[in-house]
Amino acid sequence: MVQPSRSAPPCPFPKVFPSQLERNDEFYMWLAYNQALDAWREDEVPIGAIIELGGEVIASAHNQRDSTRDPTAHAEILALGQAAQAIGDWRLNQATLYVTKEPCPMCAGASLMARVKRVVFAVSDPKMGCLGGATDLNTLPQVNHHLEISRGLLEQPCLELIQAYFKLKRSED
Amino acid sequence: MVQPSRSAPPCPFPKVFPSQLERNDEFYMWLAYNQALDAWREDEVPIGAIIELGGEVIASAHNQRDSTRDPTAHAEILALGQAAQAIGDWRLNQATLYVTKEPCPMCAGASLMARVKRVVFAVSDPKMGCLGGATDLNTLPQVNHHLEISRGLLEQPCLELIQAYFKLKRSED
Repeated sequence: MVQPSRSAPPCPFPKVFPSQLERNDEFYMWLAYNQALDAWREDEVPIGAIIELGGEVIASAHNQRDSTRDPTAHAEILALGQAAQAIGDWRLNQATLYVTKEPCPMCAGASLMARVKRVVFAVSDPKMGCLGGATDLNTLPQVNHHLEISRGLLEQPCLELIQAYFKLKRSED
Repeated sequence: MVQPSRSAPPCPFPKVFPSQLERNDEFYMWLAYNQALDAWREDEVPIGAIIELGGEVIASAHNQRDSTRDPTAHAEILALGQAAQAIGDWRLNQATLYVTKEPCPMCAGASLMARVKRVVFAVSDPKMGCLGGATDLNTLPQVNHHLEISRGLLEQPCLELIQAYFKLKRSED
């Protein structure tokens, strides 16, 4: 479904290869960052996501909204679907979602619906973020699942990427 | 991906064939109701969705979370993806989404992300609904799109369906 991009501005950021020796939060977030670079190369807003379970990466995805023309094809939605296929269960209650930007209303909701154990995000989003930015869906008392949340990991490189992409896109107009 | 169900309790509700002569809200909601019956027949919580654009049905889907083992396979998400494919654009700003139950956090968010013009739902959900039930994502001031909302159309038959399904499922246990 993904069509090759015709107009991605050249991406000046190289991929990062973190050591495999210590698989900590930073390791997985760099992989999410690399996914965001893949989004850029397809001329998509550079947001990437990784899902970890038991020390393994069970899903890697990046934003594909424009290339697939699918409003639901955000990095997190694609990763959650992949992860559920990988383990054969829609309940991801031992998994951690790493994503380079705070999830939007849809993706914050999807993390709750999938009963993800933990969400780690880099860049906060006061406009659209729904895990503390614009609102916090995780605090709804009636919802029968709550996420553990970590904010701000690798915020600077993930933010630079998004800002640089939009700056180059605007200069194209 | 959908596996045939082995344990759906027999569905006592027949499909409804509304007149094609007047394509009003009730017409489309009955089609969503019929989709909910299809969900039941696959042993899924019976929730259905239709997307209308310019008097035509451009998407019809029902909840498939359990059969696909995909936490994102709610009726609305599937319908939004279908609709975007049908028109070749992720922006659905002239479309109306009809759904038999108030959208959850993920699906309410997806409707916003897809910039749907209008959402019509039957059954309110004070626990998980995010268009006025548990919270209202549509009132977030920072989000750059707002939905027109209609609540309660065909509430009784859509609610009966969900309640009857859960009652039969519980009696199976």
